Amino acid sequence: MSKIIDGKALAKSLRQDIKSAVNEIKSEYNYTPALAVVLVGENPASKVYVNSKAKQTVECGMESFEFKLPADTSEQDVLAKVEELNNDPKVHGILVQLPLPKHINEEKIINAIAVEKDVDGFQIINSGQLATGTGSPLIACTPYGCLMMLQDKYGKDLSGLNAVVIGRSNIVGKPMAQLLLDANATITIVHSRTKNIEEITKQADIVVAAVGRPEMVKASWIKQGATIIDVGINRIEVDGKGKLVGDVDFADVEPVAGAITPVPGGVGPMTIAVLLHNSIVASCRQNNKPVPKILDRYNRF
Amino acid sequence: MSKIIDGKALAKSLRQDIKSAVNEIKSEYNYTPALAVVLVGENPASKVYVNSKAKQTVECGMESFEFKLPADTSEQDVLAKVEELNNDPKVHGILVQLPLPKHINEEKIINAIAVEKDVDGFQIINSGQLATGTGSPLIACTPYGCLMMLQDKYGKDLSGLNAVVIGRSNIVGKPMAQLLLDANATITIVHSRTKNIEEITKQADIVVAAVGRPEMVKASWIKQGATIIDVGINRIEVDGKGKLVGDVDFADVEPVAGAITPVPGGVGPMTIAVLLHNSIVASCRQNNKPVPKILDRYNRF
Repeated sequence: MSKIIDGKALAKSLRQDIKSAVNEIKSEYNYTPALAVVLVGENPASKVYVNSKAKQTVECGMESFEFKLPADTSEQDVLAKVEELNNDPKVHGILVQLPLPKHINEEKIINAIAVEKDVDGFQIINSGQLATGTGSPLIACTPYGCLMMLQDKYGKDLSGLNAVVIGRSNIVGKPMAQLLLDANATITIVHSRTKNIEEITKQADIVVAAVGRPEMVKASWIKQGATIIDVGINRIEVDGKGKLVGDVDFADVEPVAGAITPVPGGVGPMTIAVLLHNSIVASCRQNNKPVPKILDRYNRF
Repeated sequence: MSKIIDGKALAKSLRQDIKSAVNEIKSEYNYTPALAVVLVGENPASKVYVNSKAKQTVECGMESFEFKLPADTSEQDVLAKVEELNNDPKVHGILVQLPLPKHINEEKIINAIAVEKDVDGFQIINSGQLATGTGSPLIACTPYGCLMMLQDKYGKDLSGLNAVVIGRSNIVGKPMAQLLLDANATITIVHSRTKNIEEITKQADIVVAAVGRPEMVKASWIKQGATIIDVGINRIEVDGKGKLVGDVDFADVEPVAGAITPVPGGVGPMTIAVLLHNSIVASCRQNNKPVPKILDRYNRF
């Protein structure tokens, strides 16, 4: 059995299940789930990402609404756009692509998104519900995708496993730790101010690396047989050529690991698939319909 | 120097500073900070606790409004009371004493409290802001009190320290871990599903025990010189007499610990003092005034 956790394959099978769910929704519930993406400005990486999202949304049979606003759009106008989408019953999920231009307060924009349409899971009530285990929050796509990969391997219950999350961002590290805790893992968060990171990761059954430092995690940090989830996507130069690498030194760590995600082809493909998953869930809730059963296996509990 | 972290003395000095702040607010800002406490039913422990809160509120020069509602009060009537207090400009802090009778949805009541008056810090937006490090949340009193004791000893920055929180409740464990992380500690949360708790706590510089299991933590769990914060308050019988003990076996652990909170007289007294502190902060924000400088030393950062 390969050690490689094939995120590309898992994302593909999630997208196929989403496609089936969309067909069921269209024929049984008589609406088409729709995701609206708002892009402000010309950040090249954001443009690529927004285009991928739109493409996959449509491929799954959903509707995709894209709003590309100029870089000098005022905060007020972005808020007005969000408000318009909040009030549009044809739109079930809203994603405002980050980062936003500097004159716009990101926190303000994110928190203006209606909680039930916040498919990125960054809005404050969704964050609060995740943090407190209350309600039914929409959950940040990248950590949720990581959890799906782990639960695909271990089952839903991670009791007795020691998980170490490297990094404490709101986008990955903190919600990841929360999801692992909810799944009954013992969790540790290490970060730039931690003195003995290697000693701590060395005891982990699961390591999730999300710091944005190319190939930081080495074999000496890892216990034999541990599962490694690499969230990092870093562009480095090798012999004058651009190359994508994770936060984990794959060649070094792979022989020690029990299972490991590659970069690219690991966590990355899961993120957009989970975004579509969240959009389906959001659309069903807004229409007071049950989520199609084919998606049950992706539930956290 | 004594190993004992004297929560009673620290709480007393916090209350003295609060009293000074209240005097300043009355003379400079021309209002009296006020805390409203709502008690539903006849839970004896809750009654004792509510009376202590009211007494200390008044002793600090604040106004205390108490609302004691019968056990069969409807959820709707409790919500109406909360709404009335939300809209009353003379009330700056609202605390609904938990637990509520079973026919009332606690989550619903807590989330009905105006975010700026939620001095218990349990409301979903305050929880979300704490979880994401955004905004200026009001923070749950018990974990905030624990942090104040730790920062009194170590200074604000806990960089390089390994902190282990035992327990994952919303009232203590989870917000405690968040506060420690924000203070740059490395944090681990262990709980009932953790297999090797002792091994993990044995590596900690700081252990916070918040599980409600009498004298669970033994000397063999603790690294020589570690700081132990005991949140537990458990009533046990010894030789036919009632006795309060913590989650830590004090007599066993004290010789190994570098510093330790007793039960009673440790964390307990801090909780109400922090509630008053939160009420002052809330009142200043609602009146668009700066918090009196004498309270600066209790800030997290």
